[in-house]
Amino acid sequence: MVEKPRLVHFTGIGDEEVGYISVAQSMRHVPFEIKRVYWVYQTPAHIERGNHAHISCVQLLVAVSGRIEVELENTKGEKERFVLSDPQQGLLVPVMHWRKIYLEDKAVLLCLASEDFNESDYIREYEIFKSMRVQ
Amino acid sequence: MVEKPRLVHFTGIGDEEVGYISVAQSMRHVPFEIKRVYWVYQTPAHIERGNHAHISCVQLLVAVSGRIEVELENTKGEKERFVLSDPQQGLLVPVMHWRKIYLEDKAVLLCLASEDFNESDYIREYEIFKSMRVQ
Repeated sequence: MVEKPRLVHFTGIGDEEVGYISVAQSMRHVPFEIKRVYWVYQTPAHIERGNHAHISCVQLLVAVSGRIEVELENTKGEKERFVLSDPQQGLLVPVMHWRKIYLEDKAVLLCLASEDFNESDYIREYEIFKSMRVQ
Repeated sequence: MVEKPRLVHFTGIGDEEVGYISVAQSMRHVPFEIKRVYWVYQTPAHIERGNHAHISCVQLLVAVSGRIEVELENTKGEKERFVLSDPQQGLLVPVMHWRKIYLEDKAVLLCLASEDFNESDYIREYEIFKSMRVQ
C-alpha cells in the first residue's frame, strides 16, 4: 500500500486574505481508510516522541502548526529525515518504520491512521525492531 | 445520531513534561466513521468562515491550536455560541446547523467529518437555510 516514506501535497484552498483549508478524504487524498486521528500538542522542544514502529498501521503526518522533524528507519537500517513545516504537506509513514519525532515552535502534529488502536500492532522496543532487520 | 451540538472531552495522554496526545477513533471517541478530515489554518482574525449547513454530514471540531469561536443556528432559529481553546475539547455539530466560525490567535481548526465530500450535501445560502425553518 505504502512501501516507502513519501511526502504528499494537500491543496490549500483559499488565500492569505481568508485563510486556508486542506482536506484529506479516505482513499482519495490518503491511500487508506482513516480509522483513527490523533493530534500531538504542547510538547517541549527537547522531547523525542514516537519511538515505535507499526506492524500493520500506515500513517499520514502533518505539521498543522509549527515545525516537526521526523526520522524514519526502515528494516534495512536505512534512516531518512524529513522536516514538516507546511500544513499543505503530509508524510506517509509505511509499516515497519521506526520513528523519532521532534516538535518545535509550539508545533501541532496531526496524524491520520489506517487502523484502530491495537497495542499488539506496536513495536515499542528498538532492540526488537532491530532484530527484525532484513538484510 | 447527533441531535444537539455538544462538547466532548478527549483525554490528553501525557503531561507538560513530554507533551500531550489526544485520539479520536471512528465509532469510539466520535459517534461516526471518519470519512474525511480537514484543517483550517493561517486565517486572519477578522475573517468569518463556515457559513453553511450540512444535510447529512456530522462533524467534530477541535481547536488544536489557538482559540476558535463557533456560532451554531438550528432549524428553529435558535443560536448557540461555543468557544474552543483546548485541544482536549471537541464540538459535535449535528446536521442542519448553520455555522459561523472565527479563528483567533493563529488558531488551527481540525475537523473530522462523517461523509465524503459531496457538494449537494451543503446548504450555502442562508436564505435557503432559513426557509427550511421548523416551527
